[in-house]
Amino acid sequence: MPAPRGVLTARRSPRLPFLDVPYFDAASAAPLHPVARQALLAALDEGWADPARLHREGRRARLLLDAARETAAEAVGCRPDELVFTPSGTAAVHSGMAGALAGRRRVGRRLVVSSVEHSCVLHAAEAHEEAGGEFHLAPVDRTGLLDLPAFRSLLRPGTALACVQSANHETGTVQPVAEAAAACREEGVPLLVDAAQSLGWEAPPGGWSLLTASAHKWGGPPGIGLLAVRKGTRFSPARPVDERESGRFPGFPNLPAAVAAAASLRAVRQEAADEAARLRALVDRLRARVPALVPDTEVVGHPGLRLPHLVTFSCLYVDGEALLTELDRAGFSVSSGSSCTSDTLVPSHVLKAMGVLSEGNVRVSLPRGTSEEDVERFLGVLPGIVAGVRSSLSAPVAGGPREQAPPQAPPQAPEGSPAQEEAQEQEGSPEGAVPREGGGRAPGGAAAVVDSRGKRCPIPVIELARRIGDVPPGRVVAVLSDDEAARLDVPEWCRMLGHEYVGETPAEGGGTAYLVRRAHG
Amino acid sequence: MPAPRGVLTARRSPRLPFLDVPYFDAASAAPLHPVARQALLAALDEGWADPARLHREGRRARLLLDAARETAAEAVGCRPDELVFTPSGTAAVHSGMAGALAGRRRVGRRLVVSSVEHSCVLHAAEAHEEAGGEFHLAPVDRTGLLDLPAFRSLLRPGTALACVQSANHETGTVQPVAEAAAACREEGVPLLVDAAQSLGWEAPPGGWSLLTASAHKWGGPPGIGLLAVRKGTRFSPARPVDERESGRFPGFPNLPAAVAAAASLRAVRQEAADEAARLRALVDRLRARVPALVPDTEVVGHPGLRLPHLVTFSCLYVDGEALLTELDRAGFSVSSGSSCTSDTLVPSHVLKAMGVLSEGNVRVSLPRGTSEEDVERFLGVLPGIVAGVRSSLSAPVAGGPREQAPPQAPPQAPEGSPAQEEAQEQEGSPEGAVPREGGGRAPGGAAAVVDSRGKRCPIPVIELARRIGDVPPGRVVAVLSDDEAARLDVPEWCRMLGHEYVGETPAEGGGTAYLVRRAHG
Repeated sequence: MPAPRGVLTARRSPRLPFLDVPYFDAASAAPLHPVARQALLAALDEGWADPARLHREGRRARLLLDAARETAAEAVGCRPDELVFTPSGTAAVHSGMAGALAGRRRVGRRLVVSSVEHSCVLHAAEAHEEAGGEFHLAPVDRTGLLDLPAFRSLLRPGTALACVQSANHETGTVQPVAEAAAACREEGVPLLVDAAQSLGWEAPPGGWSLLTASAHKWGGPPGIGLLAVRKGTRFSPARPVDERESGRFPGFPNLPAAVAAAASLRAVRQEAADEAARLRALVDRLRARVPALVPDTEVVGHPGLRLPHLVTFSCLYVDGEALLTELDRAGFSVSSGSSCTSDTLVPSHVLKAMGVLSEGNVRVSLPRGTSEEDVERFLGVLPGIVAGVRSSLSAPVAGGPREQAPPQAPPQAPEGSPAQEEAQEQEGSPEGAVPREGGGRAPGGAAAVVDSRGKRCPIPVIELARRIGDVPPGRVVAVLSDDEAARLDVPEWCRMLGHEYVGETPAEGGGTAYLVRRAHG
Repeated sequence: MPAPRGVLTARRSPRLPFLDVPYFDAASAAPLHPVARQALLAALDEGWADPARLHREGRRARLLLDAARETAAEAVGCRPDELVFTPSGTAAVHSGMAGALAGRRRVGRRLVVSSVEHSCVLHAAEAHEEAGGEFHLAPVDRTGLLDLPAFRSLLRPGTALACVQSANHETGTVQPVAEAAAACREEGVPLLVDAAQSLGWEAPPGGWSLLTASAHKWGGPPGIGLLAVRKGTRFSPARPVDERESGRFPGFPNLPAAVAAAASLRAVRQEAADEAARLRALVDRLRARVPALVPDTEVVGHPGLRLPHLVTFSCLYVDGEALLTELDRAGFSVSSGSSCTSDTLVPSHVLKAMGVLSEGNVRVSLPRGTSEEDVERFLGVLPGIVAGVRSSLSAPVAGGPREQAPPQAPPQAPEGSPAQEEAQEQEGSPEGAVPREGGGRAPGGAAAVVDSRGKRCPIPVIELARRIGDVPPGRVVAVLSDDEAARLDVPEWCRMLGHEYVGETPAEGGGTAYLVRRAHG
């Protein structure tokens, strides 16, 4: 099919030679940029010595380190003496937060972070709390955008630090950093901006007090992060420290990686505008066509304020791990919306904070140089893969609530279990299944009960979809589940298919009952 | 001149191509081993992805990381699941100490470390103390060897951790790790062995509970360290952590560096026995010939229990920085006995703990492949360089106390200063310059006073050497100094030249008076 104008004509970067399959997980780690590789090799030859030493190898290393610092500072938008290199973006966040919190300990121990920050920010917030501090999560809307009035209201006296990412790593939503910084400035609170996902595209707006980033996100080498601390920001580095990196990060510096990080940051910035436009067109195509090609799928994140290269969508009735595995088998490397540090497939805290579907979540993040052909190929295989996974899970056919009987027998609760008795009782008299005061077994006036306890998502939603047709319109089905993801996915299923989500109540015998009223018509 | 047998016949490794001058500072950082370079490049191509991801790039990265861990664990002498990669040796030490101290917090908060540990160990000990813990320094003898009975006596109840390095980074002295581990085992105290300087040569003896190392010391890349924690060792990692590296070190792992570190560790170990023998012969030559060629110089460290590639000596009447600069100008890169993290030229805590001369300290640490010719060239230029620096500082000519008048006028104290008056008074009647009770200006019964306050070492010792001939044998000269290094260097000067060091006393008007009794004959 013909591709939209502007994409076909866009400049195409060559695919990196070692990417033998389309790699669509740039937000986890980008392949090494050729400039980074070149700079790393040169710096390994010229900058292996200790830059703190006085001999010629040490002085040569020091010159390289100074030059790398200047280049990186220019790209960040700060002074070289405000920037230090750390071993990772996580290390930059951890030491930046610890240093800022300790520096303002006298002001208070209150920490405000957006609820969609990277897990490393949340880990540091939890550590702060364990050490006697307190932290507060600023909410986001359904697109993942920071709720600015709520954020501002959290910046109460005693707030030592606030953290807002420049753009989200799972959804691509770009945060209102300038507005958040203005609110912080008014309240006299320093703002730490985690720019890990966006620094390769552009410098975040000014106004931040601390900024962190991670080189392997823009095609720099692993093993290097950036921490910038504006002059005038109170900062007391976590102990122990030494004389390295202005006393802000201890240990022998990873100089070759710093050089490669700086060189590649400059390089990717030079091509950022063109490449962002090109990838944005490809992402627009994915955003438009994935929901059209794959039924019961929704795109997650802000429609306009977003990173150029990243799109996330969620598919009903699909197991995320199975989807990843099948896409991988078909030659596409994607990620699923969990934290950046694991594929544990617990529901992502980001999707949870947004209140959107976590089921069958797929993050596509295109590395620079991704070809249109690969995106088209992805669009070509995705519908069949989703359908295959759905079929293997006996999911309902797509398109909305099913009124006819399920093609396969619904999963049976074990013989003699309370849920089975309950279901039999209610199946016999759906209209009469009203809650009994003080001792009812059908929660919330449900006309039918689906006991999906002990089953992982998406099974609870699949079973709900199969059984909703068993009750008349206007009546309630209770889904019992002990999978945390059901709390997100059942309401979202209702929203997507037009049923009413009534609410949740603890289920007798454990787990939670999610109550769904079948739509009329 | 003919070199000793066994050295000429020893196998010579080729000098690494990018070492255009003899680099004798391997203990700071070794040039990248060719195997490390090769492995790093391969791992950058194959292992740039996130090893926690499920797609093929992630799985490939995970395989590489697992293989690197197995290789490194084999070289360390532990199980792969006992070993994690950290961003540096310093990070390994800091997280290892913090984790072990926190894991045994209920036992007590007492920490015992040898007084010659690397500064990163001492920094962590200070941080522990700042956080409410306590730490105790175990003494060493004049050769830098741990005083085992003193160490054992410090392992009192409530001791959470002890730290003993495998070998010293400044003197090369190899510590009795097996004996220290046995003492710790008897007292039920875990032992952390910092093996940074020795792991490239051999695995330290077993018995340790935690072991740390740094890849760039053996020719691995910068940006990678090792932390091994034996099963059964109580360990509670410092927060924040994530799911990386068994929850022991957070952040995106530097996988290419880990692969290169492991590969190069295996490579250097394969050639370690031959290369150690070859370098030991070169170091033996330096140890024998430097004191013979350069008067008033002594070799520091244990004569037998030492690393194969490292020798440290100290030269009287020489400024360390000037010596380094002149050696650098002559094409030799060496280091001076301060901490590994700076050339601040404050007296080294190691030399101080040993109680040896810190003046004019030079550490020569030969990288693998150092040629005999380069060592001979070094021996050829060193005497002239030391003599030149001595001459520029108006140091006395070598060979012992001078009885004749100095060739140049001694430095004058400012007109009308108390010291000048004192000197004049004493010069006029040296025999009568006895201390006056309650208000004497000549400290400690000195017959002459040399006021070197405001002058950095080696000037105080140079001025002492010039003036000692001004008093009769058996009489005392007081050297006034506010340079901390004088506390080490004046007694050592006495020991080397046969005078009696009487002691020190606070000087009127600031600083310290060091009292020296001129030898008879």
